[in-house]
Amino acid sequence: MQPRLGNLQRLFAPRSVAVVGASAASEKVGHQALVSLRNFSGAVYPVHPKGGEILGRTAYPSLTAVGKPIDMVLFAIPAATITAAVEEAIRCGCGGGVIVSGGFAETGDKGIAAQERIRALCTESGFRVLGPNTSGFFNNSVGLVASFAPGIDQIRPGHIGVIAQSGGINVITGFLINRFGYGVSCGIGLGNAVDIDAADALEYLADDEGTRAIALHLEGVRHGRKLYETMRRVTPRKPVVVLAVGREDIGDFAQSHTGNLIGSYALKATALRQAGAVLVESTEELAAAAAVLSLSRLAPKRAPGIGIVVGQAGAGLVILDRLKSAGVSVPTLNETTVVRIAKLLPPMTYIKNPVDTGRPGSTFGEVIAAVASDSEVDAIVAFAINEPAAVRVEDVLPRAKQSIGKPMVFGTVGPESAIRPTLAALQRHQLHVADSPERLAHAGIVLAQDAAAQWRLRQSVSSVSIPNANAIAENLDEYKAKQVLRSIGIAVPNSVVCESRDQALAALRSLKRPVVAKILSSEIAHKSDVGGVHTNLADEDALKRALDAIDMIPLNGARRYLIEEMAPPGLEVIIGAIRDPSFGPTVMVGVGGTIAEAIRDTAIRLAPLSLSQALEMLSELRAAALLDGWRGSAKVDRDALAESIVRVATLLEQNPQVTEIEINPLRVYARGVLALDALIV
Amino acid sequence: MQPRLGNLQRLFAPRSVAVVGASAASEKVGHQALVSLRNFSGAVYPVHPKGGEILGRTAYPSLTAVGKPIDMVLFAIPAATITAAVEEAIRCGCGGGVIVSGGFAETGDKGIAAQERIRALCTESGFRVLGPNTSGFFNNSVGLVASFAPGIDQIRPGHIGVIAQSGGINVITGFLINRFGYGVSCGIGLGNAVDIDAADALEYLADDEGTRAIALHLEGVRHGRKLYETMRRVTPRKPVVVLAVGREDIGDFAQSHTGNLIGSYALKATALRQAGAVLVESTEELAAAAAVLSLSRLAPKRAPGIGIVVGQAGAGLVILDRLKSAGVSVPTLNETTVVRIAKLLPPMTYIKNPVDTGRPGSTFGEVIAAVASDSEVDAIVAFAINEPAAVRVEDVLPRAKQSIGKPMVFGTVGPESAIRPTLAALQRHQLHVADSPERLAHAGIVLAQDAAAQWRLRQSVSSVSIPNANAIAENLDEYKAKQVLRSIGIAVPNSVVCESRDQALAALRSLKRPVVAKILSSEIAHKSDVGGVHTNLADEDALKRALDAIDMIPLNGARRYLIEEMAPPGLEVIIGAIRDPSFGPTVMVGVGGTIAEAIRDTAIRLAPLSLSQALEMLSELRAAALLDGWRGSAKVDRDALAESIVRVATLLEQNPQVTEIEINPLRVYARGVLALDALIV
Repeated sequence: MQPRLGNLQRLFAPRSVAVVGASAASEKVGHQALVSLRNFSGAVYPVHPKGGEILGRTAYPSLTAVGKPIDMVLFAIPAATITAAVEEAIRCGCGGGVIVSGGFAETGDKGIAAQERIRALCTESGFRVLGPNTSGFFNNSVGLVASFAPGIDQIRPGHIGVIAQSGGINVITGFLINRFGYGVSCGIGLGNAVDIDAADALEYLADDEGTRAIALHLEGVRHGRKLYETMRRVTPRKPVVVLAVGREDIGDFAQSHTGNLIGSYALKATALRQAGAVLVESTEELAAAAAVLSLSRLAPKRAPGIGIVVGQAGAGLVILDRLKSAGVSVPTLNETTVVRIAKLLPPMTYIKNPVDTGRPGSTFGEVIAAVASDSEVDAIVAFAINEPAAVRVEDVLPRAKQSIGKPMVFGTVGPESAIRPTLAALQRHQLHVADSPERLAHAGIVLAQDAAAQWRLRQSVSSVSIPNANAIAENLDEYKAKQVLRSIGIAVPNSVVCESRDQALAALRSLKRPVVAKILSSEIAHKSDVGGVHTNLADEDALKRALDAIDMIPLNGARRYLIEEMAPPGLEVIIGAIRDPSFGPTVMVGVGGTIAEAIRDTAIRLAPLSLSQALEMLSELRAAALLDGWRGSAKVDRDALAESIVRVATLLEQNPQVTEIEINPLRVYARGVLALDALIV
Repeated sequence: MQPRLGNLQRLFAPRSVAVVGASAASEKVGHQALVSLRNFSGAVYPVHPKGGEILGRTAYPSLTAVGKPIDMVLFAIPAATITAAVEEAIRCGCGGGVIVSGGFAETGDKGIAAQERIRALCTESGFRVLGPNTSGFFNNSVGLVASFAPGIDQIRPGHIGVIAQSGGINVITGFLINRFGYGVSCGIGLGNAVDIDAADALEYLADDEGTRAIALHLEGVRHGRKLYETMRRVTPRKPVVVLAVGREDIGDFAQSHTGNLIGSYALKATALRQAGAVLVESTEELAAAAAVLSLSRLAPKRAPGIGIVVGQAGAGLVILDRLKSAGVSVPTLNETTVVRIAKLLPPMTYIKNPVDTGRPGSTFGEVIAAVASDSEVDAIVAFAINEPAAVRVEDVLPRAKQSIGKPMVFGTVGPESAIRPTLAALQRHQLHVADSPERLAHAGIVLAQDAAAQWRLRQSVSSVSIPNANAIAENLDEYKAKQVLRSIGIAVPNSVVCESRDQALAALRSLKRPVVAKILSSEIAHKSDVGGVHTNLADEDALKRALDAIDMIPLNGARRYLIEEMAPPGLEVIIGAIRDPSFGPTVMVGVGGTIAEAIRDTAIRLAPLSLSQALEMLSELRAAALLDGWRGSAKVDRDALAESIVRVATLLEQNPQVTEIEINPLRVYARGVLALDALIV
């Protein structure tokens, strides 16, 4: 095992813990630390310069004096003295430590320097640090509470792992998980994340036997690519649900909090989804979604079908509306299923999916079984207002669940006193119970999204042939950039580079008319703006006039012309690819034109990506209708467009010296595409 | 009092109730009806053809036999016999009735006919009917349960009125209101709403003394304009929260449910907001928002400022993100406030708003008071994880609330056993407590949205001078339509209608060049498509060529030309106005162009509207950035554009014979607008 990974496990599941700064004074953090360790099953070593005895334990004057390599060190000392203490812990062969103190990156330059020093120590030695500026973590499998967050020791144990950038959210999520009837295996507050970040914590929980699902709260993401790669490895093994804060510009307050800048929400969300995570919008959804997935997952599938069974049609409408808004499939049931259900229910109810049972009765379980038997249905979402006189769901549903062999979630509402025992009884049968129609719908959405994400993750990343990386020199002009595109399989118009007007006139004779004449010079950034692009030139006179105009453009260096066959009209899109400082190679597609730009109608993915992901990007565009033959124009070649996206992404990803690629516009036709302008930096 | 309104009150708050179809057989609806009336404070008359005694009450062979005009009749009989029973009730002078039975519009043509007959009876007589196909209603002020919805008699009383199109949602919302620690005054399930619809129920609850806030659930809206007008009258008196189902196309199932087609969600939502309602997304939000507003409302204000005080920064980020996403103002605190807060808190916390107290302590209440004292702050949103050892919120917050004199909502999370008593204690002090950071944020959003909606409602609807209605004849051609626009203050290009080529050439001499030549004929719907529009004509030759082309267009009737000064380039928008079958006169604005159309980037309002509402429409456009000088182009004249919207809306609203108006495009400049094409039907 790598030492860094080994030390990660020593830190989170230690057999020995030292408290540096242990104190007998009850108001001190070092005192509370010792108190919070009271249920820990391993050895505890208080460390205080004066030695003696603290809370009935022998105290040691220093870590060195303990004389053993401790697994985890709790630093309950001021920020100024931490670095020296970390150095001592490393000398003693300790595994890792938790730095609760604030006063680091969130306070400015000096704090950043101290943090960087600790980071360097960790990198050199393999010692692992959680924090600084964290409320710590707890691990129920070893009875360890290494945190001073309020009430954290009252969070009930269970099988959901929590990772939160903020210690407060760690606690909040834990209590919400409890509220929904579930428990927490391990809850980790990351704080400033100088060493251990979300990816490391994921890595740990992925291996933790007591954890069946992971809830992750993120603010900023410093090492986006690392998180992405780790997430891709983890989600096929265990479901991961993510709450990413920062849709709006809340950077000022956020930075004061954990010293992290909150980056683009869209990129963060896209990357996490692409890596197989399920994204949610609130702490409650975070807790509930992790709860649902800790009990069951669907097999990977592109668009799993949900069967809805409701005792009240109004609730059915609410659930259906939610599922459809989320793009989840609610398939019409097969004829045989409908016939089978019709026999079980009174006439006049709707039974095609949703299935409205009317006031639920003794057949409620059979109706569920019938819906579940439908080949289009992968999971059941069932709802009924609490009405024990009509149907005892605690008897009916566990039997139904056993017989159907497909995941099921249930939802109910009623007097608290009546539904609490029902909920508890159903949860004993591993049946997830939601407490409103919308929460139930969300449970269904989460099951479907997880399965769809895993399906996407299993699609092979297309390999496209790309040119020799060495061929991409600095400062490619438009012609050379287009030749690179052509070499990776993206069509460009036929063209000729001309050093003189004579060559240009010769080119006109060799090309299909009409042609376009463009200025070719690295001095010009926006050709159109300076009158450097002339289209629709059908004869020599027109070309000459165009060359005259181009010759008027003031230039220092050589003046060259690009004479190019004019492309037929088509839908214009933009493909761009950049290296994001956090997430690395990223590809973007959008429809061309001012309005599309003004509304930022783009879809993004990390590179490399599969063809099916590129096709998905197209469907995400608000202007997607334009691709399907808007107002009588032809349906465009989505496959060719998606392939171009994959090729551009691969080109960027495989050529580290390339920082940016832009095709603007790429014209898309009923068959094929043509790149009309290209930039490769 | 109008008989219909009087009968509405007799029905919902009756002093006497008859059960037609009362039965001694316990499985019968007529039996359950009598049982559910056991706590009713008024007189109860069972009606059954055989008379006798039922459940200890004397039964009458018919309504007529009772010999008194009963306030409310519960029809517990099959659909086929209802019409005759209603006729008898009318003859007896009864106030109204509840028809629980299904089998009406939701089942097809025959059911629709029966419903129409009942509707006609109601209109003629003033008798009021709730239903059919409803689970009924309950009114706690008279101890009345006129419903068979499961568990409905277990919903605790309080001050929130509930109106739900679906009986199931009526019950669900009631239980959710209870879950949040509040109660229901009156809960009404509308069902097929043959007579009493959402507007009538609103009207009743607006006058009901026991109701302080109203929660309304809607599926389809048949009489949109009536609902809109009623809502406008009600919301200034009592807050109304609306959950409108049907974002997605769920019409098939919806129609089977209450026989209502679900119309355009966007129009429904816009109309309700415009009428002062607060829109929410789920039954839980419906219950919670009504709860918040039943305790306090902010004074009407365009953009009320929210002060955020948190014990945990992570929760603060979540709350801030939510408020900003909802467009709610979170103002930076004044310098004096910041200085005051700084004295109360340890250094290193963020105190500009949100205010992060760090672990909350004894100063928590004082910090809240300091934030509330800021002139920019209209309401306080405070959050802290349950930590009684640090701060006893049940002592601190009621004191703070009293001292600040501004609305406050609080949120907390913790072990259920610990927070329940805290919640109860705070609720006794009329302090709303949310149980997650996001629910707390939503409470703040609801307060702000309600105040903003009431501010908008108080903006006077602009009056614009409009032409004599008689001047608008049928089939206005483009020229006449433009003259109408000019007469209501919307500029159009100078133009001349020409019967001959000579007139056209003369027109060229009289107008500013270049000009546009268009065909003018009611036979041509899309001028451009047939080559009927020629732009940029600077001289006689060009005009002649254009006239040649126009003369090639095959026509049956007379051929005329419209010669018009060509408008300078500018941003193109579309203004449209139609009469919606449900909501009546409605105005729409969108940016011109294929892409804007493909993404349906439009904003809508009911007519008439105020100038500030029209300006708000512009801000709602996704492409709003284009209005503000996109990429170096000039900032356009938003005021002139908004005024044009108001004028078009007023024109439609005040001229009943006009069914549709479209200006496409309207060109918008740095100063002023020009309508380039116009259609008035």
